[in-house]
Amino acid sequence: MADITLEQAQRVVEAALADARERGTAMNVAVVDAGTNLKAFGRMDGAWLGSIDIAIRKARTARFFDMPTGDLGQLSQPGGSLFNIEVSNGGLITFPGGLPLEVDGEVVGAIGVSGSTVENDHAVASAGVRAL
Amino acid sequence: MADITLEQAQRVVEAALADARERGTAMNVAVVDAGTNLKAFGRMDGAWLGSIDIAIRKARTARFFDMPTGDLGQLSQPGGSLFNIEVSNGGLITFPGGLPLEVDGEVVGAIGVSGSTVENDHAVASAGVRAL
Amino acid sequence: MADITLEQAQRVVEAALADARERGTAMNVAVVDAGTNLKAFGRMDGAWLGSIDIAIRKARTARFFDMPTGDLGQLSQPGGSLFNIEVSNGGLITFPGGLPLEVDGEVVGAIGVSGSTVENDHAVASAGVRAL
Amino acid sequence: MADITLEQAQRVVEAALADARERGTAMNVAVVDAGTNLKAFGRMDGAWLGSIDIAIRKARTARFFDMPTGDLGQLSQPGGSLFNIEVSNGGLITFPGGLPLEVDGEVVGAIGVSGSTVENDHAVASAGVRAL
Repeated sequence: MADITLEQAQRVVEAALADARERGTAMNVAVVDAGTNLKAFGRMDGAWLGSIDIAIRKARTARFFDMPTGDLGQLSQPGGSLFNIEVSNGGLITFPGGLPLEVDGEVVGAIGVSGSTVENDHAVASAGVRAL
Repeated sequence: MADITLEQAQRVVEAALADARERGTAMNVAVVDAGTNLKAFGRMDGAWLGSIDIAIRKARTARFFDMPTGDLGQLSQPGGSLFNIEVSNGGLITFPGGLPLEVDGEVVGAIGVSGSTVENDHAVASAGVRAL
Repeated sequence: MADITLEQAQRVVEAALADARERGTAMNVAVVDAGTNLKAFGRMDGAWLGSIDIAIRKARTARFFDMPTGDLGQLSQPGGSLFNIEVSNGGLITFPGGLPLEVDGEVVGAIGVSGSTVENDHAVASAGVRAL
Repeated sequence: MADITLEQAQRVVEAALADARERGTAMNVAVVDAGTNLKAFGRMDGAWLGSIDIAIRKARTARFFDMPTGDLGQLSQPGGSLFNIEVSNGGLITFPGGLPLEVDGEVVGAIGVSGSTVENDHAVASAGVRAL
């Protein structure tokens, strides 16, 4: 199993934090490894305390299913094929802000961002992905 | 980070309890500090036992995201941008009754009220906010 | 089942807090009712954050078995008759600082105090008991 | 309540990671803020997965009681005044590797390190403390 290194994870976190600062947002940024275990984390001063857990869950959710968290959220709505999948795995977060991290086409981990609108969370997570 | 004092927290609890008595309701009232840790609590005689946990979670939820719990509940509905956010942080309560507490424009904690209709819960929590 | 009233619980908390102030200690004080449910709580400024949970658990433990928490701790040591009883009920605290609260010879709840040495915790809890 | 900044927390993590590398150990390093909430985290490549949770719990434990985790562990032994305190607060870790972080004599958070012997864990945490 290919796995993210600490150097890579920290690069992803720093790129996301830099993007968050440019947007004037206060974010929590988490990176998990290929096994969904926490690898690196940073919380900006003044960021929502409730977003620590959400950032980590977004990252884990993205790696659990190797897809953007927002894609999963499309399927978990009432009437959807994965309705209320959020109660599994100790609690999933299925709105945007979590993205898989790939190296050479293989998923090596995931990033989760929380602290602003889901649009901003997703954009900042994308900045993290591009750093890898 | 500014933080609420015990004297302030007790004043908030007493104002909420007084308001609840006037309404003829039996409430649980919780105040958490800036770090979402419990600071003061009181449960009126005959108040629902299930509302102890809900009052504390409402207070924590309001501080987790620095907004009224009911506002978060608008966004966590099916199709909303934060659908099922309630599974995070060990369980959030996102219906009305939780409000941030501010001193000089800075959030220093939050109040959570539970024991009646959400309209009454919100009104009693508001009485607590006004006491600060 | 006789049960503690909010008025009584708040009187117990205030007496304990006053005693703690005289000792120059920063305490967490919790009172639970006859059903072991939280009734009143106050945390002094600067009190240990880890003692919130311990104060509540001491109060619950004292009511779970209608005895001082320290008495239970004598029995839960290695080789004792109740070895490691602490893992039950979601986690018990069996060192001093929790005491049953009685009215007319009947247990109506319990007080738990945490924030200093177990000797101080026990003494402050005793001050709460005397206020009832 | 004074609180640690992200810049300070990241400096502490980097100093601990650098010290761990010099020792040839693979560590998890966590920093929590004054409210015991996660602020920064890094896990070295090959570090024990079970030490993620332990590093975070050590940091939280050190802030919960504003003392080194190993000091608490001296008191929580069989026959000690705080026997089995570990069951509180969702699980404490009371062996060495967690230390409070202070600025101008005030506790602003804590560091927790896990991944090697407790002697190495403590030494790496100390390197983090010195960076502040």
